[in-house]
Amino acid sequence: MNLPSHGSNPQHLFKSLGLSLPEKYIDFSANINPLGPPPALKEKWNDFYQEITVYPDPFAEKLRQRIADREQISVDSILIGNGGAELITLVARFLSGKKVIVAEPSFSEYEKACRANDCEIQYHSLKGPHFELRIDELLPSLSSADALFLCNPNNPTGIQYPVSTVLSIIQECERQNCFVILDEAFYDFLVNYESFIPYINKFSNLIIIRSMTKMFAIPGIRLGYLAAASDLIAEISKYQPHWSINSIALLAGELFLQNEEFIKTTQVYISEERQRLFTFFKKHDFVMTSSQVNFYLLRDSNQKEQKNLFEFLLQKGIIPRHTYNFPGLEGNWLRFAIKSKEENSKLMEVLLEWRQLH
Amino acid sequence: MNLPSHGSNPQHLFKSLGLSLPEKYIDFSANINPLGPPPALKEKWNDFYQEITVYPDPFAEKLRQRIADREQISVDSILIGNGGAELITLVARFLSGKKVIVAEPSFSEYEKACRANDCEIQYHSLKGPHFELRIDELLPSLSSADALFLCNPNNPTGIQYPVSTVLSIIQECERQNCFVILDEAFYDFLVNYESFIPYINKFSNLIIIRSMTKMFAIPGIRLGYLAAASDLIAEISKYQPHWSINSIALLAGELFLQNEEFIKTTQVYISEERQRLFTFFKKHDFVMTSSQVNFYLLRDSNQKEQKNLFEFLLQKGIIPRHTYNFPGLEGNWLRFAIKSKEENSKLMEVLLEWRQLH
Repeated sequence: MNLPSHGSNPQHLFKSLGLSLPEKYIDFSANINPLGPPPALKEKWNDFYQEITVYPDPFAEKLRQRIADREQISVDSILIGNGGAELITLVARFLSGKKVIVAEPSFSEYEKACRANDCEIQYHSLKGPHFELRIDELLPSLSSADALFLCNPNNPTGIQYPVSTVLSIIQECERQNCFVILDEAFYDFLVNYESFIPYINKFSNLIIIRSMTKMFAIPGIRLGYLAAASDLIAEISKYQPHWSINSIALLAGELFLQNEEFIKTTQVYISEERQRLFTFFKKHDFVMTSSQVNFYLLRDSNQKEQKNLFEFLLQKGIIPRHTYNFPGLEGNWLRFAIKSKEENSKLMEVLLEWRQLH
Repeated sequence: MNLPSHGSNPQHLFKSLGLSLPEKYIDFSANINPLGPPPALKEKWNDFYQEITVYPDPFAEKLRQRIADREQISVDSILIGNGGAELITLVARFLSGKKVIVAEPSFSEYEKACRANDCEIQYHSLKGPHFELRIDELLPSLSSADALFLCNPNNPTGIQYPVSTVLSIIQECERQNCFVILDEAFYDFLVNYESFIPYINKFSNLIIIRSMTKMFAIPGIRLGYLAAASDLIAEISKYQPHWSINSIALLAGELFLQNEEFIKTTQVYISEERQRLFTFFKKHDFVMTSSQVNFYLLRDSNQKEQKNLFEFLLQKGIIPRHTYNFPGLEGNWLRFAIKSKEENSKLMEVLLEWRQLH
């Protein structure tokens, strides 16, 4: 099987399985806010049209200022990106040829972008079902490494690492001259998340990646940013193409940062739905990761492999994210996004059907 | 003076000059189709909204197929980019550390992207006012070079190089193991332009860059593509971030390729307006390049430097593109886009005012 390396775009998954995409399906494979974009975007959509005939501000001055105000950092500490994926690519270009540790399982783009830039990759494997991050286990590899990629809360497990652990790792890495790339793509789905952005001026080895496409449900228009010490930002930004961030993304970003209420509403919704789903899973002998965000890993504890469950779900028009390309998971889990109430209920209904057969 | 390195976004130009942006101005500094985007885009704009909540197809299969059909090449010979600027960056990454010749004056991103990737840059200077490209003058440098950047029709002069000259250069470069990066960003403004895309399978050293933001007036949403032999495309695409092209750009691109009439209408309009402008310039002792596209270089032949004219125009709310950062021009010309009839007339009116004073 040569399955796609990412969720979403299910046409590629079905094609690689030699199946045709059903007319009706629910895509649980993309970790996007199920509430959709903030309503203000729809209201402004027609106004945005006129902006497409003008080059976007290549320095994204307004958006950077908004982020700087919100995060209480300097505008020079921010680089706007054409989605988190571009920022990962830019960081990988910056790390070109270096020795890089990736705490696995994690987002596959770190490894892919680093390989494209001739980095030497070393996995630091976290073991399921708890996928605990332990500094004592990580320490021996740090001395020879130039950078560590850490996703927090982690994709695909949804697990948040303890603040003290992450902080100790950043400190230890600084001592060992090792960059820490902390991907906070899903931080804002978590109530009271303690971000590490306030530490960028304390630790010159800390690079934080933020995505705005997940919370604001705009993966189609791409938006993210990097936060780090200003000299690091200057160094990394030289690899970025001019006008890399389109005008619609810039305008949407400026709009969203005026809307904290939307984020709070989302957090409450996700937390309630997660609880509803997890209660069901426990009752019916499914195992899930202790996710605190808008997606989770799931497996049927009665099954050694999850291949049959995966195929059963696809037949029923339920599309999970396979985990064959996550080192440490190798298909033994399935990842699901938390979707609308109706869609989550449909998932539970289909899983109940499965349970009655197995 | 630390002037911006590109046109458009005049706020940065005025800021660098210590001036405030006038309330009313005409921006002649961006080479965008003055007719605006094809009307079909406005009609579809509301339908596009729903696409922003879904990840764009990272393989851009539909758009690549449309381009493949139109250009009569294989889909594997096409890489879609987040604007021409991203494609230049990807090619520069591919050429990392190599020795590169740039035929100057030309688009400044070639040099910038190559420098960021530690290339050694050598200028091949073309002399004004004709900026003739001569293979005998280029030949001596080719043997030691790994790549040659050529823009045809050239930005900022608007001059098209003879087909036979470009073809001889590609052939000679192939013999010398030197890539030719031929930027055809403005090819479709020219009636009966003979593209070099049909040669990509004949010459394994030929990489063609196409922009779709100029003709279709969508610089805000970014779109371009690369055409080259499929193994070259595979090699270059590994440096591209995942989901680099946003959904709106993909949909707009698919829409535009169904509309050849729009391109023809634009070509006729541009040609007529250029003639009207050039007749005026000749009559009033302004010198211009023999542009065949939607922009041109201009200078006042009565003035040694063009600085006073530049400042005069800015004061009058006419914003040309300065040429201080084009090697070989050093501010001795000003670049203007061909705009609407009314805007072009306004330019002539202001130039007449200038002529009466000088």
